[in-house]
Amino acid sequence: MIETPYLLFLGDAPDQLAAKVAQGIKDWRPEFAVGQLRLDGCKADMGLPDMTLAEARAAGVKTLVIGVANRGGVISLKWKKLLVEALENGFDLASGLHNLLRDEEDLAAVARVTGRTLHDVRIPSVKYPIANGEKRRGKRVLAVGTDCSVGKMYTALCMEKEMHARGMKATFRATGQTGILITGDGVPLDAVIADFMAGSIEYLTPDNDEDHWDLIEGQGSLFHASYSGVTMALIHGGQPDALILSHEPTRSHMRGLPGYALPSLDALRDLALTVARVVNPACEVVGVAVNTQHMSDAEARGYLAEVEARLGLPATDPFRYGAAKLVDALADL
Amino acid sequence: MIETPYLLFLGDAPDQLAAKVAQGIKDWRPEFAVGQLRLDGCKADMGLPDMTLAEARAAGVKTLVIGVANRGGVISLKWKKLLVEALENGFDLASGLHNLLRDEEDLAAVARVTGRTLHDVRIPSVKYPIANGEKRRGKRVLAVGTDCSVGKMYTALCMEKEMHARGMKATFRATGQTGILITGDGVPLDAVIADFMAGSIEYLTPDNDEDHWDLIEGQGSLFHASYSGVTMALIHGGQPDALILSHEPTRSHMRGLPGYALPSLDALRDLALTVARVVNPACEVVGVAVNTQHMSDAEARGYLAEVEARLGLPATDPFRYGAAKLVDALADL
Repeated sequence: MIETPYLLFLGDAPDQLAAKVAQGIKDWRPEFAVGQLRLDGCKADMGLPDMTLAEARAAGVKTLVIGVANRGGVISLKWKKLLVEALENGFDLASGLHNLLRDEEDLAAVARVTGRTLHDVRIPSVKYPIANGEKRRGKRVLAVGTDCSVGKMYTALCMEKEMHARGMKATFRATGQTGILITGDGVPLDAVIADFMAGSIEYLTPDNDEDHWDLIEGQGSLFHASYSGVTMALIHGGQPDALILSHEPTRSHMRGLPGYALPSLDALRDLALTVARVVNPACEVVGVAVNTQHMSDAEARGYLAEVEARLGLPATDPFRYGAAKLVDALADL
Repeated sequence: MIETPYLLFLGDAPDQLAAKVAQGIKDWRPEFAVGQLRLDGCKADMGLPDMTLAEARAAGVKTLVIGVANRGGVISLKWKKLLVEALENGFDLASGLHNLLRDEEDLAAVARVTGRTLHDVRIPSVKYPIANGEKRRGKRVLAVGTDCSVGKMYTALCMEKEMHARGMKATFRATGQTGILITGDGVPLDAVIADFMAGSIEYLTPDNDEDHWDLIEGQGSLFHASYSGVTMALIHGGQPDALILSHEPTRSHMRGLPGYALPSLDALRDLALTVARVVNPACEVVGVAVNTQHMSDAEARGYLAEVEARLGLPATDPFRYGAAKLVDALADL
């Protein structure tokens, strides 16, 4: 568990998109985002107060989060001086980069001397159990996609926000590096050893109040040749009571697989439900979350209406039009 | 790749079952099994010549294979003296035990000094790629099970033997520890990092002659809550042209999951085919392999006839009655 609140390190981000981890934290856990720290040439801006390490310390910050990704996931030499200073000033560091903080000899040495923690959320820090398939108390919802990167994480975060606004008990459960940095906890599922994947999700979503919802962050797609095993384990470990279908209608092929067309929402519904009912026979598909970022407002509304009519399910773009329809469907279940 | 031939180390095996790795090698790669080495109190016997290390060396043995599993997968102190002597006598060591040879300080030190190799097939020795989903030349068949441990490995090995007897081009591709020790190569899929599972199977089953069959060793089950993600990755990485359904009819629940009934063969066929056709639209289910070890001959024959009539597919127990029917079905494809 990463200690909060955070100072968001934007480094020398070449543009706003490179700082999407910081953006996620600022959007979804604004109470964790006390300030930002930018180096010369940084082109990203979260609209947060720019702080020195000393100012952040005075404001109660516990952890400097690397909120920027750079080419190859490398920890830049330009960053090193600042990261070392942060450790010396009493901050922990948290990173989701492919190259690990702990593998940088200078950072590891300073962390050891200062007694600070290096959180590399790219890889697991827990020895997960093998899944036992036993039914747990409480309710769980999972977004499954026609493809990778169609907005499953944002769907779960939008739903969490709406559920909290309604006073419902709900917890976003992160299964990827960005989600873990946003919430400070979770399972980096893509880095878990095969035998323990489903068990890691059981561990992440334990027994809870009967009226509590875990909003499990989706990963991959049952139809994606590279990552479908991860999705399968997520469904079987998560034991969802409800599934949301996630889709990005303008994509011409599966992400990273030029030869593969996207499946239809019907095909996704049928396969995901068959698979989910192995572990939870009561599971239902309750709605559709469409990522309409590449459509005009008129196109998006038209597409959503068409999907609702065709599938007989509420459909929305939760980021653009709110998650109320999806939360209504959960509440009705 | 493990160097052959082998001396099979049976240690102080309490019974024949404890030496099932050695049994597998002796049954399926008899040309690799030059002799056996047993310690005092060993109750297992492969019917091979008992050899000292010196005799095995003279007979051309390259590797001492630990062909026995003991409680907890531990490397017994009783074994240590012999294993050290084996390294000193010029043998490599190979083991599928949970506890790794390389983690035993004395073995690691002697291996370093003598220049011998410690093969721990429990864990990967290769950095696998992420799957690209591209169609490969050659043909592939995979057994998928209603449950774990229903005989998928033996089905593939029986088919390989029958195919070789007919002069067909066929290669068993091991995906588990026992299979790797039997053949000297393969992917320990249950120990691969989630993101690389499907890629490891693409790596294992590369482009080949158009009339060559890879017989991919099955793992887990799409219906097994603990391991279904592994099975999914195996199907999507393997791109099978043909599926065999594997089943053990006397089992009352899924292995290790008391609350879970086994799926029907129909349900397995439908789900496995849906999943396999994502990566290979031409995939067909060609037959059923039934593990009838707990049935009388009459019961077994009756059950197989019933399955053939119900599913319209050839059904056999390949270990008991031969794999000819399954190979006929492949040849007809």
